[in-house]
Amino acid sequence: MHTIEEYQRIINQRIRELDIVKAPHELYEPIKYTIELGGKRLRPTLCLLAAEMFGATIEDALSSAIAIEIFHNFTLIHDDIMDQAPIRRGKMSVYRKWNENIAILSGDAMMAMAYQYLLKNNPDRLYPIIETFNKFAIEVCEGQQFDMNFESENNLLLSDYIHMIRLKTSVLIAGSLKIGAIIGGAQEEDIQNLYAFGENIGIAFQLKDDYLDVFSNQQKFGKQTGGDILTNKKTFLLLKAYELADLASKKELDTCFAPDGNLEPGDKIERVKAVYRKLKVKDETEKEMYKYYRLALTFLDKIQLPSSHKTEITKLADNLMIRDV
Amino acid sequence: MHTIEEYQRIINQRIRELDIVKAPHELYEPIKYTIELGGKRLRPTLCLLAAEMFGATIEDALSSAIAIEIFHNFTLIHDDIMDQAPIRRGKMSVYRKWNENIAILSGDAMMAMAYQYLLKNNPDRLYPIIETFNKFAIEVCEGQQFDMNFESENNLLLSDYIHMIRLKTSVLIAGSLKIGAIIGGAQEEDIQNLYAFGENIGIAFQLKDDYLDVFSNQQKFGKQTGGDILTNKKTFLLLKAYELADLASKKELDTCFAPDGNLEPGDKIERVKAVYRKLKVKDETEKEMYKYYRLALTFLDKIQLPSSHKTEITKLADNLMIRDV
Repeated sequence: MHTIEEYQRIINQRIRELDIVKAPHELYEPIKYTIELGGKRLRPTLCLLAAEMFGATIEDALSSAIAIEIFHNFTLIHDDIMDQAPIRRGKMSVYRKWNENIAILSGDAMMAMAYQYLLKNNPDRLYPIIETFNKFAIEVCEGQQFDMNFESENNLLLSDYIHMIRLKTSVLIAGSLKIGAIIGGAQEEDIQNLYAFGENIGIAFQLKDDYLDVFSNQQKFGKQTGGDILTNKKTFLLLKAYELADLASKKELDTCFAPDGNLEPGDKIERVKAVYRKLKVKDETEKEMYKYYRLALTFLDKIQLPSSHKTEITKLADNLMIRDV
Repeated sequence: MHTIEEYQRIINQRIRELDIVKAPHELYEPIKYTIELGGKRLRPTLCLLAAEMFGATIEDALSSAIAIEIFHNFTLIHDDIMDQAPIRRGKMSVYRKWNENIAILSGDAMMAMAYQYLLKNNPDRLYPIIETFNKFAIEVCEGQQFDMNFESENNLLLSDYIHMIRLKTSVLIAGSLKIGAIIGGAQEEDIQNLYAFGENIGIAFQLKDDYLDVFSNQQKFGKQTGGDILTNKKTFLLLKAYELADLASKKELDTCFAPDGNLEPGDKIERVKAVYRKLKVKDETEKEMYKYYRLALTFLDKIQLPSSHKTEITKLADNLMIRDV
């Protein structure tokens, strides 16, 4: 088995070797740009890791890992248009660097490219791999649509939110693991347990993201916190706060997030954080996060493999939880 | 073998039976709307037709035909955003009826749905079918990008234009036939000949489209001609006209298509048509169209099947040529 860092290096190496750009350059340059922007390569790493856990080689799973990373990057390109997000990983997003049409079309081409890499699998495993891939591809779209719907929806329940992040974030993490396990020839029961691990760790991962957006150490990371507060995003923290709020806190939140509100940004963040502190939203979020984390580990536990095969994935799950950026 | 009309009826019937709409409705309603807008169902018809030519049943090929139609409709949804086209088949296009974000995302989901229908094939044939599908999916994106590039490009050659419509239009027609032939268990040589037939008939089909946009009978069809002229679209006719033009004609075309021109629409159409008449562009376009049509038929001829199996496809090719709308 390899380490997380080795998987990342292998994935980055293969991505650099991809021969992406040809005519029309307007279509392929943004694809190369996006896929080479980097990131943690979490999803392809999970695919390689799962494959090795069950006895396959990295080479067996690498095309699928690349397919997954291409798919993930395609969703980022289209999401950035929809969210009008000018920056992605510290650089201009595709629709801003080029234009919306190019961002739409490059994304579409990436989706087809992803399936080209899936086809490099052993034909015997093609069906379950593509079935898994299709399923999360559709679910990620559903999740993104729910997320957009939530912008204009009041009275959201925490369960609605969890359902949304399960679709938007978790199923891709779970599906990446599942494809690796299929390539490794895992038994159906182990595949299901690994998938359930992925689903729950994915939710914990997203809750951690929500948490860090408010409570990460701004000095240490030079990254402004409170972005979700400024954009009125309905995160776990905000929904939890409304759930716990007394009348005064509710009124304060309503004031901070009023559609016609014009609080000074720093002021808005501080006032919302003060409500979060008062309602102990930080503790509640951590509690929820660890609930999903522990649940994930129970599924990992059930997988019938020697524990030495689970070392790296356990480390990766821990890293996702303890990260502070 | 069935007739074209029977194929269309079967496809429409299956499309009506699709259980598309579920939550989130904002994602699925536009998919249902688009796929039920109708149209000639040309591409899925070609898939069914090719399958039956080589001895498969309609049921064998129907899922692939549906996948192809879903893919085609996905490209229409995204193209309408890129072209800012408010109307599709006489109704509001998706991005106008809903919004751009929903149009992007519904299109993305349709792409994944298309692959779900492809998976319903016999696993033995999955590889070549999905390979064919991936290839045209990417090429259609390339064609659309070239088409967008052409808007701001002067000095286009006719060969550039043919290359573009081959990618944007022909490969999907050819690929639809090829998938049908694969399902029918056709020999490699026959598959290649059928594909070449499709590529050439597709080009003839697009040239006919360009032709009809200028020369169809406006009274008879209540449809305004000259749309391509008004939008300065670089069609075969326009590029041919520039190729044939003497100095005076070239100057007249430059005037009509000047970026800062403000001719009255009817006037612009009439003046461009006058140049076309003078340069015999109508005859030249027909000549080119029939060149590809005849070339297509030579490939059809080579396919080793009794001629009775080619009756319907020949009829369909003829229909595409003699149609006047």
